[in-house]
Amino acid sequence: TDTLLYILHSLLISLGSLQVVGPTPSPQSIGEGLCFSDGRRKVDYVLVFQRRRHSSIRSHASTSVSHDRLSIVSNGNFPPSVGSDAAAGRGGAILGGEASVGEVFMELGGAGGNEPTDPADNEMRLIRQEFEANLLEAGLEIERDREVSLKTHGPSFTRLHAPWPVLCREAEFLKIKVPTKTESGFGSAMSTMWRKMNQPFQPKVPHQDHERTKFLSHCFSRDKLHLYNITSKDTFFDNATRGRIVYEILRRTVCVRTCQTIGISTMIAKGVYDSAFPLHDVSVRFRIPTGRHLVLHEEWARYSAFYKYQPIDLVRKYFGEKIGLYFAWLGVYTQLLIPASIVGIIVFFFGVATVETDIPSQEMCNESLNFTMCPLCDGVCDFWHLSTACGTARASHLFDNPATVFFAIFMSLWAVLFLEHWKRRQISLSFSWDLTGIEEDEVYTAYKDIKFGHKEKKIESKLTWKDRLPGYFINISSILFMFGLTFSAVFGVIIYRITVSALMAMSPDPETKSNVRVTVTATAVIINLVVILILDEIYGAVALWLTELEIPKTETDFEERLILKAFLLKFMNAYAPIFYVAFFKGRFAGRPGNYVYVFNDYRMEECAPGGCLIELCIQLSIIMLGKQLIQNNIFEIGIPKLKKLVRAIKDKGSAEKKSEQERPPQQWNLDYALAPFEGLTPEYMEMIIQFGFVSLFVASFPLAPLFALLNNVIEIRLDAKKFVTELRRPVAVRAKDIGIWYNILSGMGKFSVIINAFVISFTSDFIPRLVYQYMFSQTGTMHGFIDHTLSYFNVSNFKPGTAPQNSEHGDIIVCRYKDYREPPWSPDAYMFSKQYWCVLAARLAFVIVFQNLVMFLSLVVAWVIPDTPKTIMEQLKREKKLLVDVFLREEKEKFQLIQSLFSKDTTLQPGGHHTRASKKSKSFSFTPFTVSAL
Amino acid sequence: TDTLLYILHSLLISLGSLQVVGPTPSPQSIGEGLCFSDGRRKVDYVLVFQRRRHSSIRSHASTSVSHDRLSIVSNGNFPPSVGSDAAAGRGGAILGGEASVGEVFMELGGAGGNEPTDPADNEMRLIRQEFEANLLEAGLEIERDREVSLKTHGPSFTRLHAPWPVLCREAEFLKIKVPTKTESGFGSAMSTMWRKMNQPFQPKVPHQDHERTKFLSHCFSRDKLHLYNITSKDTFFDNATRGRIVYEILRRTVCVRTCQTIGISTMIAKGVYDSAFPLHDVSVRFRIPTGRHLVLHEEWARYSAFYKYQPIDLVRKYFGEKIGLYFAWLGVYTQLLIPASIVGIIVFFFGVATVETDIPSQEMCNESLNFTMCPLCDGVCDFWHLSTACGTARASHLFDNPATVFFAIFMSLWAVLFLEHWKRRQISLSFSWDLTGIEEDEVYTAYKDIKFGHKEKKIESKLTWKDRLPGYFINISSILFMFGLTFSAVFGVIIYRITVSALMAMSPDPETKSNVRVTVTATAVIINLVVILILDEIYGAVALWLTELEIPKTETDFEERLILKAFLLKFMNAYAPIFYVAFFKGRFAGRPGNYVYVFNDYRMEECAPGGCLIELCIQLSIIMLGKQLIQNNIFEIGIPKLKKLVRAIKDKGSAEKKSEQERPPQQWNLDYALAPFEGLTPEYMEMIIQFGFVSLFVASFPLAPLFALLNNVIEIRLDAKKFVTELRRPVAVRAKDIGIWYNILSGMGKFSVIINAFVISFTSDFIPRLVYQYMFSQTGTMHGFIDHTLSYFNVSNFKPGTAPQNSEHGDIIVCRYKDYREPPWSPDAYMFSKQYWCVLAARLAFVIVFQNLVMFLSLVVAWVIPDTPKTIMEQLKREKKLLVDVFLREEKEKFQLIQSLFSKDTTLQPGGHHTRASKKSKSFSFTPFTVSAL
Repeated sequence: TDTLLYILHSLLISLGSLQVVGPTPSPQSIGEGLCFSDGRRKVDYVLVFQRRRHSSIRSHASTSVSHDRLSIVSNGNFPPSVGSDAAAGRGGAILGGEASVGEVFMELGGAGGNEPTDPADNEMRLIRQEFEANLLEAGLEIERDREVSLKTHGPSFTRLHAPWPVLCREAEFLKIKVPTKTESGFGSAMSTMWRKMNQPFQPKVPHQDHERTKFLSHCFSRDKLHLYNITSKDTFFDNATRGRIVYEILRRTVCVRTCQTIGISTMIAKGVYDSAFPLHDVSVRFRIPTGRHLVLHEEWARYSAFYKYQPIDLVRKYFGEKIGLYFAWLGVYTQLLIPASIVGIIVFFFGVATVETDIPSQEMCNESLNFTMCPLCDGVCDFWHLSTACGTARASHLFDNPATVFFAIFMSLWAVLFLEHWKRRQISLSFSWDLTGIEEDEVYTAYKDIKFGHKEKKIESKLTWKDRLPGYFINISSILFMFGLTFSAVFGVIIYRITVSALMAMSPDPETKSNVRVTVTATAVIINLVVILILDEIYGAVALWLTELEIPKTETDFEERLILKAFLLKFMNAYAPIFYVAFFKGRFAGRPGNYVYVFNDYRMEECAPGGCLIELCIQLSIIMLGKQLIQNNIFEIGIPKLKKLVRAIKDKGSAEKKSEQERPPQQWNLDYALAPFEGLTPEYMEMIIQFGFVSLFVASFPLAPLFALLNNVIEIRLDAKKFVTELRRPVAVRAKDIGIWYNILSGMGKFSVIINAFVISFTSDFIPRLVYQYMFSQTGTMHGFIDHTLSYFNVSNFKPGTAPQNSEHGDIIVCRYKDYREPPWSPDAYMFSKQYWCVLAARLAFVIVFQNLVMFLSLVVAWVIPDTPKTIMEQLKREKKLLVDVFLREEKEKFQLIQSLFSKDTTLQPGGHHTRASKKSKSFSFTPFTVSAL
Repeated sequence: TDTLLYILHSLLISLGSLQVVGPTPSPQSIGEGLCFSDGRRKVDYVLVFQRRRHSSIRSHASTSVSHDRLSIVSNGNFPPSVGSDAAAGRGGAILGGEASVGEVFMELGGAGGNEPTDPADNEMRLIRQEFEANLLEAGLEIERDREVSLKTHGPSFTRLHAPWPVLCREAEFLKIKVPTKTESGFGSAMSTMWRKMNQPFQPKVPHQDHERTKFLSHCFSRDKLHLYNITSKDTFFDNATRGRIVYEILRRTVCVRTCQTIGISTMIAKGVYDSAFPLHDVSVRFRIPTGRHLVLHEEWARYSAFYKYQPIDLVRKYFGEKIGLYFAWLGVYTQLLIPASIVGIIVFFFGVATVETDIPSQEMCNESLNFTMCPLCDGVCDFWHLSTACGTARASHLFDNPATVFFAIFMSLWAVLFLEHWKRRQISLSFSWDLTGIEEDEVYTAYKDIKFGHKEKKIESKLTWKDRLPGYFINISSILFMFGLTFSAVFGVIIYRITVSALMAMSPDPETKSNVRVTVTATAVIINLVVILILDEIYGAVALWLTELEIPKTETDFEERLILKAFLLKFMNAYAPIFYVAFFKGRFAGRPGNYVYVFNDYRMEECAPGGCLIELCIQLSIIMLGKQLIQNNIFEIGIPKLKKLVRAIKDKGSAEKKSEQERPPQQWNLDYALAPFEGLTPEYMEMIIQFGFVSLFVASFPLAPLFALLNNVIEIRLDAKKFVTELRRPVAVRAKDIGIWYNILSGMGKFSVIINAFVISFTSDFIPRLVYQYMFSQTGTMHGFIDHTLSYFNVSNFKPGTAPQNSEHGDIIVCRYKDYREPPWSPDAYMFSKQYWCVLAARLAFVIVFQNLVMFLSLVVAWVIPDTPKTIMEQLKREKKLLVDVFLREEKEKFQLIQSLFSKDTTLQPGGHHTRASKKSKSFSFTPFTVSAL
């Protein structure tokens, strides 16, 4: 009986989906160029292949019958009632439900069989035929144009349409959540006041208020069609979902006979197809005022909308969850940069305001104190007065003041807050986008098949570690080599700095001499920047190459490995020079009389007398600004424009030949002309590296968040413009979160705590000052601090030839240098003094306290802020209750139904069954009529 | 048409579930005392209420018709074909499907209406009546015994049975996953060799090999009965699942008319019922050799099985996922303690082996070096020779040697490894237990209703922060007070130690004097232990009380808050004295001539000359061992036994009256006699505190893992025994993970890193030795280390009255004390010396390096070990593919079915519809026959 019931049940379900198969009226035209030639069936996906020129003449010769051929092939089980003109073409055979796949294939083979082509082309054509036959078998409908006579060498488009039963089947299979009729009132949490204040920042999106009332959603199931709010079968699944469904079919459709592979990606990799993409909702050029596309264009992808919130729901509806999440994340990040920027500006102005009252910089500028410093280079350099470094001391104070410590703690907590806020936002979004409870639909297409399937057969068998070993070996050694490259680049710049400053110091021109530091630093940083930009591009390519060597199993796996490698390389590249300045510069310079030399000639560089922090600050700001300006904006805007220009020029050359073609370009032609979508990795990477600038060394450059904010406001609109107008529409990919990027962000947040602790305690003068004030100062004030930080050096201890050759300062016995060492007259002269160890202990203690305090505070912040917002929690609760209600109501109805049908005649004799059966059959046989009537 | 289809669909589904409603044969008796009196319907749940004695006489008078009455009330829609003897009783009305709930209630009311009782009892009875009527309406079947004549004051049992349709409905609703017919071969990952070696450790469980072949499982749905492997409707859902389903119904059944509450928990809180529990599978006393219970009893809950793996799958099947996870976790923890113990023992023996060659302890024991130490107390104490402390120095070396540093790093990584391993195990389990994809079924019964519903009505309205404020205020202040209590207890013990040692030092008896340290330390630790044990019990109660004050919303919420509070308090309690010894003892003692005094009289205590580590070690080992021995074993074994004894004595008194009752006690009587299940919190808490001993201070006591291991081996069997034989069967609760405990564990793991870093660098002598060897030692060896650590003190600088009154050591000018201070002849005498700062810097640097290194290694370990085991990953992939196959096959079958029915006559004239319809109606009308024929 199970089987019987099952059969009946299947029947019913089939009826349920069949019922809506019939041609639906859908009076409004959906949009020019978005449909099959019958004007009703939406084009859900387009496959493109490029016809070669050399076969053009021959095929032209053989099939010059009609100029404009269309072949519509469908596997639907309803007779074609429309498009008789379309069906009139030679290839326009529309196959009924009875046609077996064999026949379909035969037909296809016959259609293309007349064109004699070269073997490779022929093979491609055979593969295409089999693949498309399998697509037909999967239920898709296909339209091809056969404008063979004119455009034999141009792109050829195969358009796919998924009819309702296929959509239903796949939606059930993919567990796509759809809204049901049951409303679950989504109480707006905002007060009216707030909403009014917020109004100017909201994008103008139609039906926005309407979307406040959320519908209870449920995984699509053909058993439960009565639950859903199906107003039109054409629009129940939006275009993004349709595209996704078709992509899913394309992904898993096999091609066994001709090429032993699975899925469209392999086909593209093999060159069977040129590309495959869903269509944009409406052409940008036509600007038909319908569809989401235009709203996005007007309210999102414009620089003039920079102050507005993003219409994230629309973005998600149009581009899918994955891209929606990227923009939502970018939005949250940018929004949270606002408070960080404000605090950064305040801290900076605190520095500006207190520079006059800062005792150490006053003391440094005070010429009466007259500290004679030891020379900065051997021989040619003279002794100098500390007061000449007054400028850098004052500049230092702008960034190196007590407020910076506060700012570092603030920014560490800010990073945690940002991540927590994003988690909440993500959960809110996944709630309102009905992503709760979905499992990541991992793409288990073996990645190796896609990339290597056509090269080797061996790979298809399981790879042992022996096969993988060379790959891993190359991998590790390449990464180490890249690291070495980065380090040597940094070292090269150091050498440049040392030699140039030595050479400039030797020059007789006093003008040159006075500008040594500025010139050298500026040029060195610019060289650094250029090196970074060049290596960045190289590293991107290297990471890709290395990841391909590893032959990861799945696409997700591939992506994660690629991201990790690219991140490691790019991170090293961007931050190596900054790390050098922050933690190594000046630490290995030695002391007067015992300097450290590189290449036996050049002394290691020291920091400016004002401290290394100011140099770190310069380095950081130039690299950050330069990278953002050049890489993010010029590269991102300029290069696509250039590419477009090149393409336009090329097209112009070939356009002359087909100028007679008077038809306006179809949507698929327009979309094909756009650049393909290449994934979100570069976009995320750019932002993550920026996040590093904002968080890692923020203690030395409080204005970093401000610059990041300015960049991002532009970046959002730039990316939006790119997605809307410059790229082909990507397949709507479902994603629950931003994946590995979250881990990288959180890792960077943690790393930033320790880096900031070290910057404050070792790079800045904060700790020595504190120690002086509370342990060594006689008065308890900062007076005498500069004197305290300078050690004494007996000039007679200079190594031969390193003493200044001709000093203007007359007879000097003792010069000073910045370090904590015993004076020459102490028993252990030039050894580290007690102060040194004391300051060192204080610095280390500060690192421990800072790190653990911030980590603890972060934990508290993360714990106090619940991951799920309260409103969402309540809403979930309400929805759960509603679901229970719906379920129980349905149960009750079912029960009553049974009662009304059975209970009354349970006591009847067996013959009564017939009566009941016929009664039922009446109501049942009614259905087919209804179905066909619709 | 949607509606029509829907109706038909519902009909079919109902048929599907009705089909199996009919009386099933089920020939084997399921077990004595586990069924209704008809011997077929399983008792799935038992509700108990206690009848009061005072109403016994009256009710006896009114209803003394029959001695053994049974009332079976059911709402099933089939006529009763069995149990006519049971139905013969007065109250044994079995209601057909047509009986409205009103009637049921009337019947119930009538049945009990004759018994005049006091108002409170009467109200309870009315509530019970309404509640049980609602249970009937929900589809449950109820059996009550009415042995009114004899046992009017004893417990009265209401037994519940869930019939198949109810089970189906609820299983669908609760999304219970059940195995389908599709096998997904579970390839065993173990090699044969390994399995053979492992054999003796495997528990003997029937069908174990069989369970290797895992069946694809799927959420239960009545639409898909044909997919499942239903051999018998009675056993398809096992007893644990049945209990869970009935509990779910009990939980959500309302009781509106008489008491405005929801669920059985409220009923129990109100005293309407005494308790409610599902039955154990088989009585322990009867020992019928069927059922899981006995296997558990034989292969799990026995001390002699201590060396075996636990039969976790059986535990889970019997007790549900939550308890299964607890035992699995305990198993993983115990298993991983084995390597930790081994390494700990090796480290300990390394200490033993190297004690003879250790230069510092040699130097300390060397009497020829003759260090005269400053006196340990004022006045009465004399100078002493360092060589007298030789014993502690040697003992110290056992725990304070370089291997300890390695061990600390090892254990920190071990903790990470343990958590990672557990994560993997959890994922494996949740895969093989089919928990993937389930959402936590949060119990949204407002907790406040359960506990307070009967007290105040006000609480039911939404609580504002004003209502909650006093609760929070009491909360925070109580916790602070408890913290204060703990600290004062610790401080009290310190005072005890100081005073007693001072008094003993003053005693003239030399015997007493020499034993001062040992006696004082030992007694103090024992006092500490007793205080800890007492406060632990108090804190448990306080945490419960405080959490109730907070009125949390859900039960999960309640549990989490309770756990957090209890953990905080108990953790503080257990570790406060240890923290004191590790980090504070001896740090505030001052220096000779400038000691710190408490109460103006007593000098703060110092550490033993061998270092504080040995004291920490003693403290730790005694508290750990004592706590485990006394609390875990004596309390856990002794107190239940005692309670049982008390109950047995009580029962004996009342048993005399009913000795005439000759029937053997039913299963529900036996189970009712057991103690109720009170949650897993105490079990987890005990283990977590132990985990703290193993991880937090492991640097000072490498044998901790060994003691923990010994304890846990017993603990597992002890807990198992308790669950199997001493507690009522808990409701099988579904749980995906161990919840907040994982966070606590991981938090402790992180905390342990910093604690161990500080113990090694500050409590042990590891860093000073390193610094001496590499910075100050002339020879590069450890010779002279002891001399280096001792500062000089000029005896003339003693404050008046604090110098030794009568010294045996003759004329002493300079004594030594353990500190890094300038000697008396230096310009800044008794200030911290350069060495001090140097060592301090080294200590701090070590903390930073250790902490960050271990954190980094932990991250690497966590990253390298994938959360999901590879086999599971592959299995999941395979299952996904199988699911796709099943889905596609079903689709195809459906399609063919439709084709065979429709396609052939599509071309017929419209009249053909009738033909088709009648054909279909034929196949359809066939069903009722089939159904009733079964």
